Amino acid sequence: MDLDPLDQRIKSFAAARDWDQFHSLKNLALALTSEVGELAELLMWKTDSEIQSALDGLDFKEELSMELADLLIYLLRLFQQSGIDPIKSAHRKLDINEARYPVELSKGNAKKYTQLEDKQ
Amino acid sequence: MDLDPLDQRIKSFAAARDWDQFHSLKNLALALTSEVGELAELLMWKTDSEIQSALDGLDFKEELSMELADLLIYLLRLFQQSGIDPIKSAHRKLDINEARYPVELSKGNAKKYTQLEDKQ
Amino acid sequence: MDLDPLDQRIKSFAAARDWDQFHSLKNLALALTSEVGELAELLMWKTDSEIQSALDGLDFKEELSMELADLLIYLLRLFQQSGIDPIKSAHRKLDINEARYPVELSKGNAKKYTQLEDKQ
Amino acid sequence: MDLDPLDQRIKSFAAARDWDQFHSLKNLALALTSEVGELAELLMWKTDSEIQSALDGLDFKEELSMELADLLIYLLRLFQQSGIDPIKSAHRKLDINEARYPVELSKGNAKKYTQLEDKQ
Repeated sequence: MDLDPLDQRIKSFAAARDWDQFHSLKNLALALTSEVGELAELLMWKTDSEIQSALDGLDFKEELSMELADLLIYLLRLFQQSGIDPIKSAHRKLDINEARYPVELSKGNAKKYTQLEDKQ
Repeated sequence: MDLDPLDQRIKSFAAARDWDQFHSLKNLALALTSEVGELAELLMWKTDSEIQSALDGLDFKEELSMELADLLIYLLRLFQQSGIDPIKSAHRKLDINEARYPVELSKGNAKKYTQLEDKQ
Repeated sequence: MDLDPLDQRIKSFAAARDWDQFHSLKNLALALTSEVGELAELLMWKTDSEIQSALDGLDFKEELSMELADLLIYLLRLFQQSGIDPIKSAHRKLDINEARYPVELSKGNAKKYTQLEDKQ
Repeated sequence: MDLDPLDQRIKSFAAARDWDQFHSLKNLALALTSEVGELAELLMWKTDSEIQSALDGLDFKEELSMELADLLIYLLRLFQQSGIDPIKSAHRKLDINEARYPVELSKGNAKKYTQLEDKQ
């Protein structure tokens, strides 16, 4: 999966419409909030098993796909407007997470790293 | 920018810790909410120009980079657990956005497509 | 429960610190996003029954109480800065909700009003 | 402003529709996320001064009022389902905030309490 053509297309889409003026980091954070809200609305009254069943149907999966797409588009826009490389940034965060959550301490539990007891 | 190694690494990270049990779509939507909240906290009391100045400093840019990384990691996890391809999905959404926001109607304004007047 | 002393105290708290300058509606919306994120973090990896058990313990209930308090404080601040009466506004919305969700159509289901079939 | 009739009305509204089954804390946190998203959507592309102008018009103020009302209704529901008193809880949080943000250190700045230097 190549991220570059998507990243470039998002940039061109905004440039062609002269939308850089609206895409401050604060405005984009609010836009991301708005899209997380739409994702939440899709899921909030369904149980986990109702969501699994709904995923087998085309309508729900398509709605979900379009909400996740909106989130990805705005998130890439946030990376662009911050001058930060998304792939490198996520790999660096995973380096940190691997150190914070050693397999032997984190396997099978969801404790925050600040609450993981030292092994031994 | 190749998304595959990152995508695979995120999958392996969760699998090694047996975390699939926690990663229902609802839980991941809450996790994404939590991360959008941390992004908001980073920006909320700064003006746009204070944010621009802060971006020139290493500390703020690093904090922002790690918050955006968290968002990307959880978002990719949502795509994974939904069985949806992020790149294809975002391109399809951009197809829709291009139809909804024709350049000649949207240039220089941020009106929602439902409020764009038909040209002519 | 009298809302006035709380409402007044929040106003005085901000005024004494000269914080009106920071409390634009956009900034307060980001602050609310940040607090919803902290609420989400408290709940995200727990099952419903783990949350019920945790509520019996003092620590979790206190944490939850303080997060909900933060949300109420910022929300009242948003009402203040908008010049909108919270009680009247909520009663008017409930009037609308009662019309949208008639008991005989909504009982026992969580369908959105746009998807409720007309009775008969 | 008396909160009790509103609080009671929200309880009765849910009880009459047998909605307690849907109103777990996690589901309500997602519902709150969804409403914060709608608030964000209302504000995200407007400047602060455009928002002030819009507040003078009836349509925008009414939309904003209904979004803030939704937030208040779900937030009170979260207090109810947690068995926490909203007014007492918010006053206790303000006690904490007054200790964290002494007027002489916080006046005119928005620094987080963890970054306020001790007076001397």
